[in-house]
Amino acid sequence: MTKQRLEIEKSNQQKPKPESDQIPFGSVFTDHMFVMDYDSAKGWYDPRIVPYEPLTLDPAAMIFHYGQTVFEGLKAYRGEGDRILLFRPEQNFARLNRSSERLSIPPINEEEVMDHLRELISLEKDWVPETKGTSLYIRPFIIATEPNLAVAPSKTYKLMIILSPVGSYFTGGLRPVTINVEDQFTRAVKGGTGMAKTAGNYSAAYQAQAKASQEGGAEVLWLDGVEKRFIEEVGSMNIFFKINGEVITPELSGSILKGITRMSIIELLQDWGIPVTERKISIDELYQAYEEGIVEEVFGTGTAAVISPVGEFNWLGKKMVINNHQIGDLSQKLYDTITGIQRGEVTDSYEWTVEVI
Amino acid sequence: MTKQRLEIEKSNQQKPKPESDQIPFGSVFTDHMFVMDYDSAKGWYDPRIVPYEPLTLDPAAMIFHYGQTVFEGLKAYRGEGDRILLFRPEQNFARLNRSSERLSIPPINEEEVMDHLRELISLEKDWVPETKGTSLYIRPFIIATEPNLAVAPSKTYKLMIILSPVGSYFTGGLRPVTINVEDQFTRAVKGGTGMAKTAGNYSAAYQAQAKASQEGGAEVLWLDGVEKRFIEEVGSMNIFFKINGEVITPELSGSILKGITRMSIIELLQDWGIPVTERKISIDELYQAYEEGIVEEVFGTGTAAVISPVGEFNWLGKKMVINNHQIGDLSQKLYDTITGIQRGEVTDSYEWTVEVI
Ligand SMILES: Cc1ncc(COP(=O)(O)O)c(C=O)c1O
Ligand SMILES: Cc1ncc(COP(=O)(O)O)c(C=O)c1O
Repeated sequence: MTKQRLEIEKSNQQKPKPESDQIPFGSVFTDHMFVMDYDSAKGWYDPRIVPYEPLTLDPAAMIFHYGQTVFEGLKAYRGEGDRILLFRPEQNFARLNRSSERLSIPPINEEEVMDHLRELISLEKDWVPETKGTSLYIRPFIIATEPNLAVAPSKTYKLMIILSPVGSYFTGGLRPVTINVEDQFTRAVKGGTGMAKTAGNYSAAYQAQAKASQEGGAEVLWLDGVEKRFIEEVGSMNIFFKINGEVITPELSGSILKGITRMSIIELLQDWGIPVTERKISIDELYQAYEEGIVEEVFGTGTAAVISPVGEFNWLGKKMVINNHQIGDLSQKLYDTITGIQRGEVTDSYEWTVEVI
Repeated sequence: MTKQRLEIEKSNQQKPKPESDQIPFGSVFTDHMFVMDYDSAKGWYDPRIVPYEPLTLDPAAMIFHYGQTVFEGLKAYRGEGDRILLFRPEQNFARLNRSSERLSIPPINEEEVMDHLRELISLEKDWVPETKGTSLYIRPFIIATEPNLAVAPSKTYKLMIILSPVGSYFTGGLRPVTINVEDQFTRAVKGGTGMAKTAGNYSAAYQAQAKASQEGGAEVLWLDGVEKRFIEEVGSMNIFFKINGEVITPELSGSILKGITRMSIIELLQDWGIPVTERKISIDELYQAYEEGIVEEVFGTGTAAVISPVGEFNWLGKKMVINNHQIGDLSQKLYDTITGIQRGEVTDSYEWTVEVI
């Protein structure tokens, strides 16, 4: 297949850019976006960069009725000498295709879309903020567009990539948070869609999130849907435990999202000679280790925060205070290393970063 | 709260209506639709009937990213003397609000929206087809519209009602179908969103549906997500078994949709003095009963088909042929009674039907 030509239609307006220290999360968008269409006869066609503008869809478009959609989230960072860097973007496009498979959405050509993303970011380079901790958030997503109420895969789709400058996740550095262990609601179950990045998984979590907030928690710790015992994820992050010198993260059970931060941390720990295991870990095992005083550090991992230290768990009225509400040494070191690599300040011996310009 | 005035903007075009015997499912829409908006300050506001037209949404609208959406499905039937009847519509609006609660969507005023629906159907009355088995399908749905990538409930929503004339589900009367028992994929699990009518539940089923088709099945029989043993639903229908003179339907476990057809059938059977039980029933129990030769009838139930007789199950390579692939007497009687009530041809001693005009 020959590569399709990217059409570029420039916006004749330039929106004002927010100050680096006052960027709200996820509500400011750049001047342009990437769009590409699919239909069963032509495949993916018409890749184009156009002004950021509203979408027009039939009210019967399948996305509104049966939720056939997938998305990704990654970031562009500004490094030394105005270089703009991406962190393992090929992993995001690979995961997008894995998610699409689960949702019966046709795959994209990962390399081609990656090239189009580079073009889009080059065009929007002034939107990548400079201050440490800030970045340009990149949201690729695919939606089913066929106007039809039959419960079946759509014959047409739209892939879009929108960009949003985002501030630091933690203003004033890392800060350990309190987590509520959820014993009632379920995020995902084996055989379901938990391993896919698809819309329905996220709104399904709102009620548990509201419950956590009411009880003073910042996020939800999800247990498996079958036995309500094994730890899965925290909020929209993967989770790691340092117990008695060993680092443990829940194995990919079929209901957990395979995080790119998670993957990178496992590689780093292996290189650093720190024992790291992917295996089942139950909430009872955690509590027992806590009672024995051997839980050293706990942290969530994901593109948004990179590392989010856990200071405390609430579980059925019981409290587990982790590392005296302090940031652990390993958490800090992982945070510094990964954010350093992302901004080109730490040598990237893994070839994780991709230079856009 | 005073009732809000419904604005009506008439379309200046009238689309051609399909012939009663050639109506495709779910792809023809009437000339008008109902729309109402929500924001956190005003609540639900601006109820209006407008020409059926495309929707314009920001690409960052939350519906595209986190799937916060619910829907309903009901039908308007044309009865004797051109009366137009709805079947238990208040149950659909009550369920819409129950679904909304699970998805953290603000509730609607059920009676008010019901009134607006009557207006819409009166305006579109010529779109209600006449032939037996046809109807005007009604699709209310709510979508999250706030343009924001934060993973949190939207501050704004849109409720829409679109109408689509639909043909007979079974051309040429009831026809028993073959069902694949799904042992790998999961539709829903306790604590999840299975009891809500929300988009993500439906596309989550496409892979299992494709697998069923490949193996010669028309629909999927879903087992519970925990033990993969208890029967839940069939495709997008509830399911009933007549075994040794007793009718059994899976109890509402938290992951099953509470069907309005299901509810009506339970009431009818009770009135007819036929024993009917809502309880757990496992696939092993069904197979054992099958081997004993006491499985008399099996049928799915839902608004689309009313009654869909099951002729055969495929389960891990084993076949269960039900009632010699014939329509059972009870299935037929339930079908005739409910469709009769829906069209005003059978006395409705339950006050299930609501006359629109
Ligand atoms: C459910 C869920 N788990 C985990 C993650 C972390 O994945 P990643 O490290 O690739 O950002 C994310 C966010 O991307 C997520 O949505
Ligand atoms: C998942 C699911 N189960 C069951 C049903 C049957 O419900 P009802 O009888 O209200 O149409 C439906 C369809 O509405 C459904 O979507």
